[in-house]
Amino acid sequence: MTGRLIGVGTGPGDPELLTLKAVRAIEQADVVAWFAKLGNTSNARAIVADLITSQLEEQLGYPVTTEIDRRHEDYKSATSAFYAEAAERIAGHLDAGRTVAVLSEGDPLFYGSYMHIHVRLSTRYPTEVVPGITAMSGCWSQAGLPLVQGDDILSVLPGTLDEIDLRDRLKNTDGAVIMKVGRNLPKIRRAIEAAGRLDSAIYVERGTMANGHSIRLADKTDDVAPYFALILVPGWGNRP
Amino acid sequence: MTGRLIGVGTGPGDPELLTLKAVRAIEQADVVAWFAKLGNTSNARAIVADLITSQLEEQLGYPVTTEIDRRHEDYKSATSAFYAEAAERIAGHLDAGRTVAVLSEGDPLFYGSYMHIHVRLSTRYPTEVVPGITAMSGCWSQAGLPLVQGDDILSVLPGTLDEIDLRDRLKNTDGAVIMKVGRNLPKIRRAIEAAGRLDSAIYVERGTMANGHSIRLADKTDDVAPYFALILVPGWGNRP
Repeated sequence: MTGRLIGVGTGPGDPELLTLKAVRAIEQADVVAWFAKLGNTSNARAIVADLITSQLEEQLGYPVTTEIDRRHEDYKSATSAFYAEAAERIAGHLDAGRTVAVLSEGDPLFYGSYMHIHVRLSTRYPTEVVPGITAMSGCWSQAGLPLVQGDDILSVLPGTLDEIDLRDRLKNTDGAVIMKVGRNLPKIRRAIEAAGRLDSAIYVERGTMANGHSIRLADKTDDVAPYFALILVPGWGNRP
Repeated sequence: MTGRLIGVGTGPGDPELLTLKAVRAIEQADVVAWFAKLGNTSNARAIVADLITSQLEEQLGYPVTTEIDRRHEDYKSATSAFYAEAAERIAGHLDAGRTVAVLSEGDPLFYGSYMHIHVRLSTRYPTEVVPGITAMSGCWSQAGLPLVQGDDILSVLPGTLDEIDLRDRLKNTDGAVIMKVGRNLPKIRRAIEAAGRLDSAIYVERGTMANGHSIRLADKTDDVAPYFALILVPGWGNRP
């Protein structure tokens, strides 16, 4: 009998935003695995710290993250080898009959590292995915910003898009979430302004952390932003 | 002292997908309010049934839903009057010092009816929003389908869009979620095929219900679908 693989979403930061199912999955797992850059701590691990008692832990330590360009072949081969090795490490536990909960900040199948384990192991072992509250959902809830309604279109856009593409997509959607803000903020601001949507855009930093905050993008006068800041552009123009 | 307004996301259906924060908010509320078409039951109310003990309940009964076209002025004025009246009913509880939890299936500020209460009352009363697992997140988790990764763009599209618009948007995004499938299924299928994405599209019915299931859209040979079915088109073409 092999163990079960469970991808567990830990939500955006507040431990109260774990689901009942996630809590149970972590408490009942034989092994709790989590990704973190080598030498760093894991946000997902910190969110569930109170639930880890006697489970084994398995750190999956990224060899590289931002040092090499994502599109470079060296990045791809390094990360591909890393994910293959991480999957085999987890497979070892599953073969030994241990249930493994792989933590994923936010939602596992929505921009989560767990996906790399999932595609390698879900055809070989019984697998379950426990969804989590996404960072964007945590952010618009904290900001109290109704995002989309009715027949609205929502676009989730990386801040790495070029300025013209970003502008055109913002012109052609109702609601939008722009992720990976960081050093892209000046460009994103120009694109939002060119799309005529600066007045309604909201900048959110550290969404559901105790020290998080949100302000109108128009009122944020500097161009300094952390990588994980988000910008929300509400749709819902035609409200009854 | 007025009471607090709390918009509470109940998630997509499985009571285990409630967050700890949602459970606490509902348990501690003086009043639990929920939307339902007059004479019908509420899915959100059913999800949290076990948590309702001595709280007061307030049903907010939609006067119309699908009988009148959404774009018709009669629809807008009927729903607008309804939301205004519902908000005032809740304001009455808040004025009396009662904390009111307004239930919202999925996430309150993501296509949720709660938004109509939020915009009317959040400037007048202390307000908090507890995010919930969205239906789409419940669906891709149940289907075990990695949706978007890295710098992918995600488009959330209503199935009510016209065929050409839908096709063009599907050509121009990485991942996509198509909601409001129902009678739009034949058109959606043609648009997905024209965009060259039929092979990877997944049809999901009753996402996180006990009787839910998912299949490849290409293998779904009929054109019968409930309104709340979803179609998922995964991005993530460039995986390491």
